[in-house]
Amino acid sequence: MKRLLTMLAIMSIGGGAQVAFANDELQKLIDDPNQWAIQTGDYANLRYSKLDQINKDNVGKLQVAWTFSTGVLRGHEGSPLVIGDLMYVHTPFPNTVYALDLSKDGQIVWKYEPKQDPNVIPVMCCDTVNRGVAYADNKIFLHQADTTVVALDAKTGKVIWSVKNGDATKGETNTATVMPVKDKILVGISGGEFGVRGHVTAYSMADGKVLWRGYSMGPDSDTLIDPEKTTHLGKPVGKDSGLTTWEGDQWKIGGGTTWGWYSYDPEENLVYYGTGNPSTWNPTQRPGDNRWSMTIFARDVDTGMAKWLYQMTPHDEWDYDGVNEMILTEQQIDGKDRKLLTHFDRNGFGYTMDRVTGELLVAEKYDPTVNWATEVVMDPKSDKYGRPQVVAQYSTEQNGEDTNTTGVCPAALGTKDQQPAAYSPKTELFYVPTNHVCMDYEPFRVSYTAGQPYVGATLSMYPPKDSHGGMGNFIAWDNKEGKIKWSLPEPFSVWSGALATAGDVVFYGTLEGYLKAVDAATGKELYRFKTPSGVIGNVMTYAREGKQYVAVLSGVGGWAGIGLAAGLTNPTEGLGAVGGYSALSNYTALGGTLTVFKLPE
Amino acid sequence: MKRLLTMLAIMSIGGGAQVAFANDELQKLIDDPNQWAIQTGDYANLRYSKLDQINKDNVGKLQVAWTFSTGVLRGHEGSPLVIGDLMYVHTPFPNTVYALDLSKDGQIVWKYEPKQDPNVIPVMCCDTVNRGVAYADNKIFLHQADTTVVALDAKTGKVIWSVKNGDATKGETNTATVMPVKDKILVGISGGEFGVRGHVTAYSMADGKVLWRGYSMGPDSDTLIDPEKTTHLGKPVGKDSGLTTWEGDQWKIGGGTTWGWYSYDPEENLVYYGTGNPSTWNPTQRPGDNRWSMTIFARDVDTGMAKWLYQMTPHDEWDYDGVNEMILTEQQIDGKDRKLLTHFDRNGFGYTMDRVTGELLVAEKYDPTVNWATEVVMDPKSDKYGRPQVVAQYSTEQNGEDTNTTGVCPAALGTKDQQPAAYSPKTELFYVPTNHVCMDYEPFRVSYTAGQPYVGATLSMYPPKDSHGGMGNFIAWDNKEGKIKWSLPEPFSVWSGALATAGDVVFYGTLEGYLKAVDAATGKELYRFKTPSGVIGNVMTYAREGKQYVAVLSGVGGWAGIGLAAGLTNPTEGLGAVGGYSALSNYTALGGTLTVFKLPE
Ligand SMILES: O=C(O)c1cc(C(=O)O)c2c(n1)C(=O)C(=O)c1cc(C(=O)O)[nH]c1-2
Ligand SMILES: O=C(O)c1cc(C(=O)O)c2c(n1)C(=O)C(=O)c1cc(C(=O)O)[nH]c1-2
Repeated sequence: MKRLLTMLAIMSIGGGAQVAFANDELQKLIDDPNQWAIQTGDYANLRYSKLDQINKDNVGKLQVAWTFSTGVLRGHEGSPLVIGDLMYVHTPFPNTVYALDLSKDGQIVWKYEPKQDPNVIPVMCCDTVNRGVAYADNKIFLHQADTTVVALDAKTGKVIWSVKNGDATKGETNTATVMPVKDKILVGISGGEFGVRGHVTAYSMADGKVLWRGYSMGPDSDTLIDPEKTTHLGKPVGKDSGLTTWEGDQWKIGGGTTWGWYSYDPEENLVYYGTGNPSTWNPTQRPGDNRWSMTIFARDVDTGMAKWLYQMTPHDEWDYDGVNEMILTEQQIDGKDRKLLTHFDRNGFGYTMDRVTGELLVAEKYDPTVNWATEVVMDPKSDKYGRPQVVAQYSTEQNGEDTNTTGVCPAALGTKDQQPAAYSPKTELFYVPTNHVCMDYEPFRVSYTAGQPYVGATLSMYPPKDSHGGMGNFIAWDNKEGKIKWSLPEPFSVWSGALATAGDVVFYGTLEGYLKAVDAATGKELYRFKTPSGVIGNVMTYAREGKQYVAVLSGVGGWAGIGLAAGLTNPTEGLGAVGGYSALSNYTALGGTLTVFKLPE
Repeated sequence: MKRLLTMLAIMSIGGGAQVAFANDELQKLIDDPNQWAIQTGDYANLRYSKLDQINKDNVGKLQVAWTFSTGVLRGHEGSPLVIGDLMYVHTPFPNTVYALDLSKDGQIVWKYEPKQDPNVIPVMCCDTVNRGVAYADNKIFLHQADTTVVALDAKTGKVIWSVKNGDATKGETNTATVMPVKDKILVGISGGEFGVRGHVTAYSMADGKVLWRGYSMGPDSDTLIDPEKTTHLGKPVGKDSGLTTWEGDQWKIGGGTTWGWYSYDPEENLVYYGTGNPSTWNPTQRPGDNRWSMTIFARDVDTGMAKWLYQMTPHDEWDYDGVNEMILTEQQIDGKDRKLLTHFDRNGFGYTMDRVTGELLVAEKYDPTVNWATEVVMDPKSDKYGRPQVVAQYSTEQNGEDTNTTGVCPAALGTKDQQPAAYSPKTELFYVPTNHVCMDYEPFRVSYTAGQPYVGATLSMYPPKDSHGGMGNFIAWDNKEGKIKWSLPEPFSVWSGALATAGDVVFYGTLEGYLKAVDAATGKELYRFKTPSGVIGNVMTYAREGKQYVAVLSGVGGWAGIGLAAGLTNPTEGLGAVGGYSALSNYTALGGTLTVFKLPE
């Protein structure tokens, strides 16, 4: 708290009264556990609430307080926000936003219904999801599927400004939330399966003016990389690293999209995010390390300049997008206070880093079935430092085009995908919704046409052999040891975001539709409730008039649920997910509903 | 019960072993309060359950047990059935049917998804609703929107047989449930707004063969009316009454569709149902009484022959379809046991009749604002016997074409529409979900084209002046006195079906989305819960392993909710309902969800 106050003080001197005010208000809301002011719970992406009225002793008595149907089918990711009396609920395409008055039994105060060209639907790789709105400066920020970024008056829903961040006719779309920081909002872009070159863009909160844009690849002027000062595992990256690690012009259609959850360290003034797969999925077509796809970026919020980078999966051969969230914690290692960044990568390794320097501290498998690499080289003196050691048998490049590489674990959707983990400072554990899925992967040559799929691989997905038979686990992870503390088997991938609370309870949702509450220390299941549809939303909590509520969007979909969401039945459709998750249709059907829980009176 | 056993005995002699078995099984299921084997609760349409675990003292503690999203938007009418371990849940168009295994936490055992031509959607007058499936003979019967009647294996969902009951290209559609009786199923037809001539058809349960069809109008051979034996208020109707009360060939496009809830008296072997509005809505275009539109029919189940008829609104000028359900009770009047039929007509009169003879006993307004008629003439000697006395000011015919008749109460959707009432033998009261709405009605000349709207009137709807400001009431009605016992004002029409139970509780849903429980004696509200969407489904109850459950489908729509359901905003669209119910969008959005309630453990 002292640290925070100092930070705010600095800001109000440095940034001018107006700016300080905007951020000040949002930070206050974020710090107030009665609100849920940002999708990620806080800037550190902890998804931890200090509320403890609902706790491990009484959570078993939880009951449904009220429910709200969003009027939209297909996958509902993200969560509502709660700011004072208003709850903001968003939907997948068409990205309707509702403001509900919690003081009036959830009456609809306003509804924003963008008119979007439905042609955006077929160029969204992994369902028409949207991971939610952001709040700052009395505005609600929505980044629509068609990449329109819109600022709405938080009280009335009136459009204040709106800009286009991309071009959906070229396969540029959006699914991510908006990150409000200081006087800016930061937004990403999707389209790695369409050869979109990823970027993060900062817009002015006030009027939507572009402040900076940093690409994932290209010349340093595009990537906002300083060849001398920007480091990779402690070493300067050198000139045009986003060009020289590619053959020819492939970087121009090189992917590395930016559709994950961002985090922010106000003290360091750094924003953290990861980049997605290099395009195409056929690795033979893009020799080189393909920097900076599959990379953690730490960028200065004001300038966009990259301070440090870490590429987890150089020259990806499996679609292990590096976009998963960075969780920022302060923990002791060997008796020393460290500012850490913990990241559960699609590639199956859980990374612990020093978030100030970008030093790699831990890289361990968070699912024992991960087999595509034996380890990440941890010796700083090795020329392989920080690189995963690829197992030849599972190398889709070494096996070559038109060869089916079988039994690769994890599958393309990784040991974890967009579903965000939570962290409890009380247990110092990370609660991670995971996938327990393997794949066959057959790359093939593909040519680029703007707006057309640029995938170049055929996939099948299935549960690991000799495992518990299910396709998911919900685990507790020790990021200092790099060890699984406990693991709960789940029949399907846990595609919902977790919530940890001071009540020593951890919540998550399942693809069949359960909201589950487990003991933060032991993982023991304490409560379950079958919501209307499969849960791929993130659990959130808030309090009103002294009463704590827990809420989650259900509405099956996302990549895992794409078969149901898009009505596909051919097993290799949906980039291989349709077959893998076909049994989901025995449990749930589409439909977006918010379910709000409370303890009995 | 003695009566019932006698009846079954007679049946098994008369109808052959096979037939008796089918009906026997269904009757047993209907008699078992743990099941909900027929949409209407029982053949008498009481919607009364003998279950009393949930009662007026503990209903306030009700909580949600589980929920299920149907994957379909738009209006969800009807209710699930529960037969043993399986619950059958249906949806509006495309009329998906799910069998959920209640012993396995609601897992989907099978799903039937008909492929229907979406061109049926625009020829459905009042949303794409469906009022649910029927069960008999190990089959689930579904009457699809496109009039395909299909028999599914109740265990597997496999199609056993399927027939077409109408032609959607001519505007013939279906929304009603199927009535299983003995070895037959009876089905109706919709399309009064498209000049469809209504009929009821009996198909063989075993193979879908047509057994008989009775039209609402036309020659006696079509209507299955015996000019000598079929009576209207005690008098033989005479030859071709369904022809002679029409001008020219208008009867061929004369409406009188049959989309309501049917009831059945096994002792009398009579099925009861009502017919809808004569076509067009412009009364000037169809001189005459327009028999047998707006009529209660009592037909012999085996032959289809009409035993008696009663036309409530001769020569309709307001679209007061006579399809609302007939509720069959045994009550004492003046110390004598009577077999009664009680019917809450769209026209605002609650009728009590002798269901054996068709004698009219009571006809009183069940909303004091009803103004289009002063009374129904009750003097058998009058030549106006049984006819409503029309008030000239509100006669759209007398005011003439292209004149806007204003302030007519009720509106076209009547003091009650499809939403079925319930009856408790314990209180001898009827619990009636009602509309409290008036209208302006301007008829205009229209010409008939098959498959095109044949309405010929422009409407506006609004709450009555000098009333409570809302658009609905939930009332308790004494059918012997013809008096309202108590009345609960509601902001919107109560478009959901009621349920009365031996626990002295009455349940109903509201268009904003509440499930409400009230004291059967006093109407005092005991419980409310906000379901995901507006409720137009019917509340049902069942028990498993000694525990009582109450369930209701939410999913706003129907005629009242057509603005939301079809995305209409012009006030006179949706036959006038869009304007009247526009405020609904401040409360709820679309989405089909089943919510199941129970008491805490
Ligand atoms: O490369 C891309 O641009 C991109 C975008 C998205 C997206 O925007 O949802 C996904 C992915 N990739 C992806 O690889 C992936 O696994 C994925 C899962 C989901 C989801 O919401 O369930 N989206 C995406
Ligand atoms: O004349 C007809 O054939 C016909 C059909 C239907 C129907 O099938 O739903 C309705 C009506 N009329 C009608 O008049 C009416 O008020 C109505 C309400 C509803 C409903 O489900 O909310 N359907 C219908």
